[in-house]
Amino acid sequence: MQFRVAILGCGTVGGGVARILLDQQVALHERAGREVELVRIVDLFPKQSAERHGIPRALYAGKGDELSPEQADAEVLGVLEDPDIDLVVETIGGSGPSILGTTRGVLEQGKHLVTANKALLAKHGEELHAAAREHGKGLGFEAAVCAAIPIIRSLEDGLTGEEILSISGIFNGTSNYILSKMDTEGQSFGDALRDAQAKGYAEADPTLDINGGDAGHKLTIVLRLAFGLEVAFEDVPRQGIDTVTAGEVAFAEEMQGVIKLICHAQREGDFVYAAVRPMIVKRTNLLSKIDGATNAVRVIGRYAGENMMIGQGAGSLETGSAIVSDIVFLARYGDHPRPAPPKSELRLRPLGDLKLPYHIVFETADVPGITGIVATAIGHQDINIDSVSHNRHENDNAEFAIATMPCTRAQVDAAVLDIQNNHPGSLLGEPRVLPILI
Amino acid sequence: MQFRVAILGCGTVGGGVARILLDQQVALHERAGREVELVRIVDLFPKQSAERHGIPRALYAGKGDELSPEQADAEVLGVLEDPDIDLVVETIGGSGPSILGTTRGVLEQGKHLVTANKALLAKHGEELHAAAREHGKGLGFEAAVCAAIPIIRSLEDGLTGEEILSISGIFNGTSNYILSKMDTEGQSFGDALRDAQAKGYAEADPTLDINGGDAGHKLTIVLRLAFGLEVAFEDVPRQGIDTVTAGEVAFAEEMQGVIKLICHAQREGDFVYAAVRPMIVKRTNLLSKIDGATNAVRVIGRYAGENMMIGQGAGSLETGSAIVSDIVFLARYGDHPRPAPPKSELRLRPLGDLKLPYHIVFETADVPGITGIVATAIGHQDINIDSVSHNRHENDNAEFAIATMPCTRAQVDAAVLDIQNNHPGSLLGEPRVLPILI
Repeated sequence: MQFRVAILGCGTVGGGVARILLDQQVALHERAGREVELVRIVDLFPKQSAERHGIPRALYAGKGDELSPEQADAEVLGVLEDPDIDLVVETIGGSGPSILGTTRGVLEQGKHLVTANKALLAKHGEELHAAAREHGKGLGFEAAVCAAIPIIRSLEDGLTGEEILSISGIFNGTSNYILSKMDTEGQSFGDALRDAQAKGYAEADPTLDINGGDAGHKLTIVLRLAFGLEVAFEDVPRQGIDTVTAGEVAFAEEMQGVIKLICHAQREGDFVYAAVRPMIVKRTNLLSKIDGATNAVRVIGRYAGENMMIGQGAGSLETGSAIVSDIVFLARYGDHPRPAPPKSELRLRPLGDLKLPYHIVFETADVPGITGIVATAIGHQDINIDSVSHNRHENDNAEFAIATMPCTRAQVDAAVLDIQNNHPGSLLGEPRVLPILI
Repeated sequence: MQFRVAILGCGTVGGGVARILLDQQVALHERAGREVELVRIVDLFPKQSAERHGIPRALYAGKGDELSPEQADAEVLGVLEDPDIDLVVETIGGSGPSILGTTRGVLEQGKHLVTANKALLAKHGEELHAAAREHGKGLGFEAAVCAAIPIIRSLEDGLTGEEILSISGIFNGTSNYILSKMDTEGQSFGDALRDAQAKGYAEADPTLDINGGDAGHKLTIVLRLAFGLEVAFEDVPRQGIDTVTAGEVAFAEEMQGVIKLICHAQREGDFVYAAVRPMIVKRTNLLSKIDGATNAVRVIGRYAGENMMIGQGAGSLETGSAIVSDIVFLARYGDHPRPAPPKSELRLRPLGDLKLPYHIVFETADVPGITGIVATAIGHQDINIDSVSHNRHENDNAEFAIATMPCTRAQVDAAVLDIQNNHPGSLLGEPRVLPILI
C-alpha cells in the first residue's frame, strides 16, 4: 500500500526533504515496507524552489506556476482534504494562528503530520499532540531539536528503560559558532556575530539565535518529552549570549573551562530545574569540545549513566534527513498510536533555585583589601569558595573571578548586594555571574 | 492488556533487567501503554541471584530452590510453552546449539525475543531474524552493541532517512581501558591488562575482549543493520590489541594520535570494506577522546553528515536499561513487524583493500642511509609519504615511523617485501603497520 506524502513550504528544509524522497525511493520503499511517494508540493515560488533543489516542476501545486497567497491557501486546503494523502510535511514556519490552523487541520483530516517547527511545538505542542491522539495519527518532530541527531527518537523509543535525571545540550549552532570564535580567536561578541553572518551561520536578523529564544523552543520540547512537563514557552527561563564578554571568556579559560549556551534540565525530587543560559563547561566535559555550528545532547539516566549524542543541528539535507526518518517511522507504525501519557506530577523550577557552582567576575577599584571584602561577603552567605583567579589590572581597575562550590543563585545575589550595600563604590558595575555545568 | 515478561538467566545482565522492571513498574506501564509485568525468572541459582539483585524469590521458577540443569531445561520449556508469556529475555549467553534452540523456540512459540547475546546474533542472526519474521514476532537486541547507547534503535528507526556511508566505533570497553592506560600512563600491554583485571574491567579469561572477537561480533551485527549485509562472523577481518606495543603508542602520540581498537565499515560503490583492528585516531577526531571503558559510535551519512554517540558499553543496569527499552518498544509495536528487507547487493571486502593512510613503525639497524632505503621503497609502490618521525636510537638499533597518504595494505606489504628482498638485514623484525582512521 502506497504511503503518499505532501510538502507544504519547499524552501531550505522542505527542499531537502523532497530531494531525499526523490533520491532514495527504492531504499525508503524497502525500509518502510511500502512505497513512499512524494505526490505534491505547495510553495509560493515553485520555479525558484524547483531549480534550487532539482525538483520536477510537475510536483508543485498549480502546475509549477507562481501562486498568490490566496491560491496557495486554496492549494493547502486541497492537500488537507485530499483523502489520498497520508502524511503532510509542514516546513512553512511561524507559530501564529495560520500555521497552527494548518497543522491542526492536517491531523483533523486524518493525516500524519511531520514538522521541523520548534516555535510552533514549543507554543502549541500540547494542543497538537492532543489533536494527533484524538484523530489516531502520528506527529513527527525529529527535525525540531538538533536536526540530524536522532535525539527525539532516542527519547521516545530508545531510552524508554531509563529514569532520566538530566538533559543538557548545545541546541543552537549559531550561538555555539559565535562562542567558539570568541574562545579560539579572542574575538568580541560583535565581531564573532558579523563573522557568523558573513559565513551564513547567522541570519540577517539573528535575534532568536543569540537571545536564547530558539534554544528555549527546543528545551520546551525536550521538557515535554523527557519529563512529561507541559510548560508555557514563556515560563522557561532563558538568557542569550549577547551579554558574554571577551573578558569572561578569558577568565573561563583560566579555570580550564569554556563558555557555551547550554540548555539544561535536571530532575530533583518532584521538580525539574531548567534554563537556557551561557554556562561554563569544564574542559573535562565532552560538551566543551563541541565547536562551531555542531549540536550536542548529554542525557544522564539513573541506569544508563551518561549518554552523549553529537551531530549537525541545521542544514537543508541534515534537517531533511531527520524529517524523512519520521516519515519512515510513521509509514511503519503511524497507525498504531500510543495512548496519552498521564499528566506528570513534576513541576518546573528555574535553574537558579538549584545548587550549582558559580563563576563570578568582579570588576573593582584596584585597591588593597578588595579581594578580602568580596571573599568575606561570599562566605557570609554560606558559600564555599573553590578558587580565586589572578587579578587583571587595567588603569585603576581590577578584574578577578571567583569560582564557588554549589549554591543557589539567590545566595550569589545576596553576597553581591551585601558588598554593594556595605562597601559602596567598591564594585564597578554588576558582577558577571555564570553557572558552571557539572 | 498486560504484557508478560520472563527472564532466562538472571546473572549480571538479567538481574539488571529484573531490577529495572520491578523499580519502574508505573513508568513502564505509562510508556508502553499497558502493564509490563515480570512473571517468571529461570536461573540455576535463585538464592544468589535474588540476594545480589534484590529480587523476590517467588519470581524464580522452582519456588526459588536451586535447579539441576535438567530441572532448568524443563522450566525453560515451561516458559516457552506458556501461552500467557508475551516476551522472553535471553540473558544466558553462549552461541552453541542449546541457546540457539532455546531462542528459536521462543520465536516459534509466538513470543517476542530480547537478547544481549552478541555472539549468538553474530553467528545465527540471519536465522533468528527469519524466525522472528516467520512467526510475526519481534527480536530486540539493543543491548548487544554498545549496551546503553541507543545505537540499534537509532539505526533501525532513527537514521532511516540516511544513506549510511560509514560506521566506526569503539565497541569493546575492556580493550579501550587497556589502550587508555598504555597511552596515559605509558604502561605495557601486559601491565595494563593486569590493571584492567584487578579493577574488574577484564574477565579472568579476557581472550574475546583483547583478540577482537567481541568487537567482531558487534561489527557483524552492525553490518547487517546498517548495510543489509549477511556475512559469516568468521569472514569479518579482525585483529586484537595484544600485539600493540608501548613504542607504537609513543609514535602515535608524536603524530597527535592515539591507538584505539576500532570497528570500521565503509561503503564504497558496491562494496563495504570492514575490519576490527587497532587503528590510529588523530586527536582532532572525537573518537580519540573516548577513554576508559566507554563505548562510542560514529555514523557518517550522505545527508546527516557525522553523528556520534557515546555511552556505557557494559554493566548490569546499563545493559539492563537497553533491554528494557526493547521490551517497551515491543510492547508498543511488536505485533506490527516489518517486512523482510530485500537481500542487499553490497558485498564485503577486507578493509585492507580500501585506500587508507597508514602508520608504519620500522625497527632497523642504526646505519646511515636506512631512512632513504625505506622511503625509496615506499615511493616505488606509488605511495606518497605524509610524514617521517624522529628516529629513536637504542644500542645499535633505530626505530622510526612513517605516515603515508592513502594506499592499500597490499601496497604497504609490497614496499616492506621490497626492502627485505633488496636490503636483507636492514629491517629488524616485521614493521608494525596500523591504518589511520580518517
